Amino acid sequence: MDTKHVFSVLVENHSGVLARVASLFGRRGYNIDSLTVSATNDPDISRITLVVQGDEQVLEQLKLQTEKLEEIIEVFAIDRDQSLLRELLLVKVAADDHNRRIIREVAEIYEASIVDLSIDSMIIELTGIPSKIDAFLEIIGQHEIIEMCRTGVTALERGRKTKHGRK
Amino acid sequence: MDTKHVFSVLVENHSGVLARVASLFGRRGYNIDSLTVSATNDPDISRITLVVQGDEQVLEQLKLQTEKLEEIIEVFAIDRDQSLLRELLLVKVAADDHNRRIIREVAEIYEASIVDLSIDSMIIELTGIPSKIDAFLEIIGQHEIIEMCRTGVTALERGRKTKHGRK
Repeated sequence: MDTKHVFSVLVENHSGVLARVASLFGRRGYNIDSLTVSATNDPDISRITLVVQGDEQVLEQLKLQTEKLEEIIEVFAIDRDQSLLRELLLVKVAADDHNRRIIREVAEIYEASIVDLSIDSMIIELTGIPSKIDAFLEIIGQHEIIEMCRTGVTALERGRKTKHGRK
Repeated sequence: MDTKHVFSVLVENHSGVLARVASLFGRRGYNIDSLTVSATNDPDISRITLVVQGDEQVLEQLKLQTEKLEEIIEVFAIDRDQSLLRELLLVKVAADDHNRRIIREVAEIYEASIVDLSIDSMIIELTGIPSKIDAFLEIIGQHEIIEMCRTGVTALERGRKTKHGRK
C-alpha cells in the first residue's frame, strides 16, 4: 500500500539544484504532497524536505536516483516514529458577529492563534503534524474558507544523534 | 537596491509543474531564499510561495515569464505591509544541565516551544516572520546548533479581499 514518506535532501546552495531535484520527481510522476526549501546553519547548504507517496520499492529507487545528482550532499528518509514533523497553516475564514465565537472556540481547542481580524473575516495560524492540520481544516471547512496556505512539512529526528554528518 | 520579494504562484496540481517553475528560476539565476509548495482548499490547485531577491525591474520580468507557463493559474506579488508572513523553525541545540536553563529563558522570551528533550539536546519550535526567526537563531547560535530546518515563508494578505479569484 502507498504511504506517505518524508525525505530530507541536503543540497549545495546553487540556483539550479532545486530545478534538477524537482525535475527528477516530476519526470517520473512521483506524487509530491509537499515540498519546502530553506536555509540551514551552513550558508552553502540548503535543505529540501519532501513528502512523497509510494511503496517501499519505489522510494528506495527514488533515493538512489536522487543521490546520483551532482549537487546532492545527502538524502535520507525520515523515520516518522523517531521524528518531529511540523507544518504551518494560515487560513482566512469568513467570520462575522454570528459565527466568530464558534470559530474562535474551535481555534482555542486546537491551540491555534487568531492573527488577523476584519469585519467579516479572520486569519487563523496553526502549527502541528499534517494530520492535525487536516483535522482542523475539516472542522473549519464548515464555514467559508476564503483563502489558505500551508508551508508543507519540515522534520527533525528526536534526540542528540543525527543520521548525517552535516547540519 | 535588491530587496526580498514574496510571490504566490497558483498552479495546476500536476507532477511536472514544480519542475518547470523551479527550472525557470534556476535558469535565470534568480536567488531563491525559500520556496514552499502545498495544497490549497481546491484539490486541483497547489500554491507555491517564493521569496526571491532582486530589484523591481527583474521581478516584474520574472512575474511576466512565470505567467507564460501553461499550468500557471495566477502569479501575484505579496504586499508585505498588507500581509501576514509566517515561517516555522525547528532547531536542535546541544543542551545539558549547565545551559538548559539559559536556552529555556531565551525560548520563553520568544514564545517558542520546547518540543523535544534528551540528556544533552533539546528541539525548539518557533513560528513568526523570517526576521524574528533570524534574530532568535542569532541568540541561540551562541550554543551549539546540532541541526535545524525551516519551512520557508508562506503568506496571506490581511482582510477579506483577495487580489485573485481562486482560493
